[in-house]
Amino acid sequence: MTWQAALVTLFPGMFPGPLGFSLAGDALARGTWSLATTDLREHGIGRHRKVDGAPAGGGAGLVMRPDVVASALAAAAPPDDPRPRLLMSPRGAPLTQARVRDLAAGPGIVILCGRFEGVDERAVAGCGLEEVSVGDYVLSGGEIAALALLDACIRLLPGVMGAEASGVEESFEGGLLEYPHYTQPRLWEGRDTPDVLLSGNHAAVARWRREQALRLTRERRPDLPGAAPPEPGPGKPRARRRACEGDRD
Amino acid sequence: MTWQAALVTLFPGMFPGPLGFSLAGDALARGTWSLATTDLREHGIGRHRKVDGAPAGGGAGLVMRPDVVASALAAAAPPDDPRPRLLMSPRGAPLTQARVRDLAAGPGIVILCGRFEGVDERAVAGCGLEEVSVGDYVLSGGEIAALALLDACIRLLPGVMGAEASGVEESFEGGLLEYPHYTQPRLWEGRDTPDVLLSGNHAAVARWRREQALRLTRERRPDLPGAAPPEPGPGKPRARRRACEGDRD
Repeated sequence: MTWQAALVTLFPGMFPGPLGFSLAGDALARGTWSLATTDLREHGIGRHRKVDGAPAGGGAGLVMRPDVVASALAAAAPPDDPRPRLLMSPRGAPLTQARVRDLAAGPGIVILCGRFEGVDERAVAGCGLEEVSVGDYVLSGGEIAALALLDACIRLLPGVMGAEASGVEESFEGGLLEYPHYTQPRLWEGRDTPDVLLSGNHAAVARWRREQALRLTRERRPDLPGAAPPEPGPGKPRARRRACEGDRD
Repeated sequence: MTWQAALVTLFPGMFPGPLGFSLAGDALARGTWSLATTDLREHGIGRHRKVDGAPAGGGAGLVMRPDVVASALAAAAPPDDPRPRLLMSPRGAPLTQARVRDLAAGPGIVILCGRFEGVDERAVAGCGLEEVSVGDYVLSGGEIAALALLDACIRLLPGVMGAEASGVEESFEGGLLEYPHYTQPRLWEGRDTPDVLLSGNHAAVARWRREQALRLTRERRPDLPGAAPPEPGPGKPRARRRACEGDRD
């Protein structure tokens, strides 16, 4: 079954863009996923195909009209289309790898790419849009955010990564960052490969990788669930507290 | 002065991609920013231009060789190049709008786009790479993450957004999500524009927007600094606790 992506955008020419290369591009050619774009401009109002207007209440920039957005979304997907309808927006729920797995396991997604100052608030409720954010920074539009979301989903589709690289041992699985990697040459500019990785002792390698993943997560991302400290044992110093508990002390 | 982006990648054809359109594309054509790509493959080893190897210690996938990465980075930027050297990686520090502003205010960036399972750990230290993550999900490579980072920076370069839309009133400024937007038509499918936005009372509009930004941030992103509750007044119920405090109760 083909995983179906529908993009509603002012810039259909941006797609597939980088998703036309490498694994995602091969999977697109094979029909593992499909891409349809709907040009918002074609749903614009009047002779000039107006898609935006001044913000009510004043201020800089332009806001995307709810009627134009609704018309384009209706053209992209009928009301009974089972795919989730997402609006890429910095005000949305932060995207997580768990959400990516859910979306990749479904029939596909319909994505509205916002531009200008944003989309009229009434279109969000009126069109059943779920706001999703790819990170705490502001982009010039939702298109590159949509590319990121699609890429994250597509690599998890059956057959895309191949049988070996299942995506199970990677960052955010188990709430941890991934352990460090090493490859040839064994010695590079005075920097050696850790002995344990060359020992042939699979249990020791697995233990080392687990320890490194935990260490990296605690150092860099104490907010991730995998960073939770173990219960303090007798005589052991209490593990460092998570950063978000600090302001209670 | 031109803001200079240098990309080290296995897929130079992905650039400028979506950054060739709209504001970023216009700014590229005007010389507000420049783009140079270095093809990792050209720095590969031997007749087959090998860029990767099996992970030391075993496991699925391939790891990018440190010698190849170092050679390509040296070609992309001399040792005394003042630009920050970033590696797009889910193990990196989460990108923030504050970091984007810093990068946009500098001379540009050099970005290594990782692929496969990742980059040999020794190359990170050996080449002075700073790991940056665009979000808590896994992409098939660093290229789309680099596009996101570049787009976020480019829109803040002088002249790109125009004088009016200064990017000051937007999400993450002041640690808040942005307030909701409305435009024409005033009434759409039974949904009205809030009266205050049509009142002409600028102070009331500003107050309403501030309240809405605060409400949205507390509802959706209690982790953002702008969501911190006010001190409880006499007789008022205590403000809702932040989510991360819950497990202490």
